Amino acid sequence: MKCSYSALMTDFYELTMMQGFLERDPDRQAVFDMFFRRHPFGGGYAVFAGLDPLLDALENFSFIDSDIEYIRSLNYFSDRFIDYLRDFRFRGEIHSVSEGTVVFPNEPLMRVKGTLLETQIIEPLLLNFINFQTLIATKSARVCGVAGDASVMEFGLRRAQGTDGAISAARASFIGGVKATSNVLAGKEYGIPVKGTMAHSWVMSFDSERAAFEAFADMYPDDCILLADTYDTLMSGVPNALKVFAKLKAAGRRNYGIRLDSGDLSFLSREARRVFDKEGFTEAKIIASNDLDEWIIEQLSREGASIDAYGVGTRLVTADRDPSLTGVYKLAAKEENGSFSSVMKITNNPEKMSNPGIKNVYRFYGEDGMMLADLVLLEDSMEEVEGLIAEKKPIRLNHPSIEYSYKTLENYAGAKLLLRKVMENGKRTEPKTELKSIQAHAMQELSALHGTYKRFLNPHIYKVSLSNNLKKLKMSVIKDHMS
Amino acid sequence: MKCSYSALMTDFYELTMMQGFLERDPDRQAVFDMFFRRHPFGGGYAVFAGLDPLLDALENFSFIDSDIEYIRSLNYFSDRFIDYLRDFRFRGEIHSVSEGTVVFPNEPLMRVKGTLLETQIIEPLLLNFINFQTLIATKSARVCGVAGDASVMEFGLRRAQGTDGAISAARASFIGGVKATSNVLAGKEYGIPVKGTMAHSWVMSFDSERAAFEAFADMYPDDCILLADTYDTLMSGVPNALKVFAKLKAAGRRNYGIRLDSGDLSFLSREARRVFDKEGFTEAKIIASNDLDEWIIEQLSREGASIDAYGVGTRLVTADRDPSLTGVYKLAAKEENGSFSSVMKITNNPEKMSNPGIKNVYRFYGEDGMMLADLVLLEDSMEEVEGLIAEKKPIRLNHPSIEYSYKTLENYAGAKLLLRKVMENGKRTEPKTELKSIQAHAMQELSALHGTYKRFLNPHIYKVSLSNNLKKLKMSVIKDHMS
Repeated sequence: MKCSYSALMTDFYELTMMQGFLERDPDRQAVFDMFFRRHPFGGGYAVFAGLDPLLDALENFSFIDSDIEYIRSLNYFSDRFIDYLRDFRFRGEIHSVSEGTVVFPNEPLMRVKGTLLETQIIEPLLLNFINFQTLIATKSARVCGVAGDASVMEFGLRRAQGTDGAISAARASFIGGVKATSNVLAGKEYGIPVKGTMAHSWVMSFDSERAAFEAFADMYPDDCILLADTYDTLMSGVPNALKVFAKLKAAGRRNYGIRLDSGDLSFLSREARRVFDKEGFTEAKIIASNDLDEWIIEQLSREGASIDAYGVGTRLVTADRDPSLTGVYKLAAKEENGSFSSVMKITNNPEKMSNPGIKNVYRFYGEDGMMLADLVLLEDSMEEVEGLIAEKKPIRLNHPSIEYSYKTLENYAGAKLLLRKVMENGKRTEPKTELKSIQAHAMQELSALHGTYKRFLNPHIYKVSLSNNLKKLKMSVIKDHMS
Repeated sequence: MKCSYSALMTDFYELTMMQGFLERDPDRQAVFDMFFRRHPFGGGYAVFAGLDPLLDALENFSFIDSDIEYIRSLNYFSDRFIDYLRDFRFRGEIHSVSEGTVVFPNEPLMRVKGTLLETQIIEPLLLNFINFQTLIATKSARVCGVAGDASVMEFGLRRAQGTDGAISAARASFIGGVKATSNVLAGKEYGIPVKGTMAHSWVMSFDSERAAFEAFADMYPDDCILLADTYDTLMSGVPNALKVFAKLKAAGRRNYGIRLDSGDLSFLSREARRVFDKEGFTEAKIIASNDLDEWIIEQLSREGASIDAYGVGTRLVTADRDPSLTGVYKLAAKEENGSFSSVMKITNNPEKMSNPGIKNVYRFYGEDGMMLADLVLLEDSMEEVEGLIAEKKPIRLNHPSIEYSYKTLENYAGAKLLLRKVMENGKRTEPKTELKSIQAHAMQELSALHGTYKRFLNPHIYKVSLSNNLKKLKMSVIKDHMS
């Protein structure tokens, strides 16, 4: 699937606001933060994804002639505005965490700087890409995390939310740890290994299950996974598979097995394993599928199910139980008389307040390389924190909303800045990262996150705190507003 | 967004099976049924959608050169198969229910006939389109159904599952009854009315809320919906809006109002309504948004919230609580020595068994035009049922899985055949239907469905039964298999 992302991939109110900004002050600068407010699935972490395809889309973000004609046909916009759109390109600057990074609520994941017009119109596209891929990379990390030594394959194309829902989900699932996809186009576009063998219709198109298995083994003797549950797994599928395994083994082949797609996967897999081992086919693989998710795999694993690989489809690619990430894009600073003034969303609900100003995030690590805490701080007062880090001095971690609450971080081994510049003047500042490297980065990140944050039920809450200066700024903006 | 759907939008196992079919008998015909097994959201009906874009994709379903090169690079397929793919087109025949039709579990919604090769490879694409759009059209019908006189707008782009997840959801939401979308590209592509006014960032980019409202009213005096909750809805948003309404009214304008995007929408809307009415602005509209769904809107409506329109985003376009439709595609008949033999999936679970043979569906209506029941029957024994219908004789409705169970349908006023031919030799048999007409058809269908099926909790179960001949065939296929 080749798609060109027209700049019309936006919300109508972005255009109405843009026209307003154009009339008032077209060059006025602004800074927006992208962040989310709550982990999906009741979990304790998220895996950031979607950046690279977003940068592709932003580099090509423009209105084609028919877009312009459509906008004109709405009879809502001035000729001046329509002319402006004709030459519109996104020429802003973007700082972002890297894809595959483990991230937490209420810290900026991306920071977009540019004119109010250009920073505003990209909001829906940016959120669409980052919200969805981060959601799926997170789901995938949860699923793969409980699968242990068993590998996980993504099988979701037929139930995904649209074609891009499938392709983007395959990409994000790979970042989160799956080893392969069934989606051939995702294989081509992103170099993800593709896998799959047969459907029930293959078996049903033959006069017998045995004939179907034999025909398949003749064609694919070196990758022969037989779907064992079309009629009756233990009475028919497993015995027929054994006969085929025997022939393959006699011919010196070793890569065969079965897939279970219904019934009690725990019982059936152990029973099939017992039979295969008894008959001397210890190398035969057992693959399981059928509406799996992280909770079912955790349960199978706890029961000692004998499963070598999982095919996970629907519930992975649609992020079942929590099909959206609550990512938002909020104004953090606006130009006033040539310099930036910090702004924030002020509401009656302190949890929903954003953090003002142009910010970055330091992540602190312990001696063992594990993540300790994140500190959100202002770019224009970084030196102070850098000085403390250089000397490994204690760092004050202020609670993001409770004024008097803070902790002191001591005994950290190092710190890393999370937001890096990825786009300048609307162009990438560095070449694309290979998807394999992004996956490797995610695996490294996940291994640096303590298991208590990965628990499904009541995970430990990772601390995202404010620096002294940011806390001061936030309180002063709130007090100014109150008065 | 312009996308070309490569034929690689398929699962790898379809290709491995195709190669097998090509080697064995490339011209062998098969018939597949598309159906689903369970209503989403615990509901009592679904609204069929996604057909028209699917037919577009199938008319253009082919492998481009780089697809062929990719397949070759997998070192899995023969030269003969790769050459075959080079010229591959879908040339099959499709029968389908019309988009916007109310449909139920376990009845065929589509029937695909062609070679095993071509009917097999389109499975994932067909399911992807129909599953997702049917899911969202159904969600939309539920949401719009409880909104009463208030109109519903689709606002989901930023949280949708990918870009196509957003565009396709806008289309399907419109079929289900929304009046407008925020998604400008969906407006252009499908002619859906686009709506939207301002975000919190508009308000925050000004020195005061009042200045932000006034600037907006100057620009858009005839469509002036002011976002009232940036700071404090009742203390600031509503009083500032009143001042702007007064100016607009003095200038002869009448189309203004507010949008509430946080807080208790029931309380705030009634309070705002009271103030507006007291000040003489009875025409001022109140629009509500903020993570709405059918249950929240039902509750607001029950409490007498004063809301003229709803903006529904995330939970509509991601089908929150049930983000996938369980649509499947099962072999129903295969060619044996020149004629079709009926097949079905036989499992230990009677609920998961499919229905064999080449089928269609009659829907029966009462004198009042309301739907009574659906009857699945075999195409080659239609005459018998048609004869009964012509004379309005009683029709036996056999339970789909319990052998001895049936009901007799009497006093029906008429019947309609649901599956019509929509594609022949890989080409549409009729021109595209305008989206507005599809929406009108859906509204008509929903009005013919009794309210008991639309209830959210424990809806009445609509009867989908088997004709005598189909029941007989099903039982004989099962008994053959057992012996």
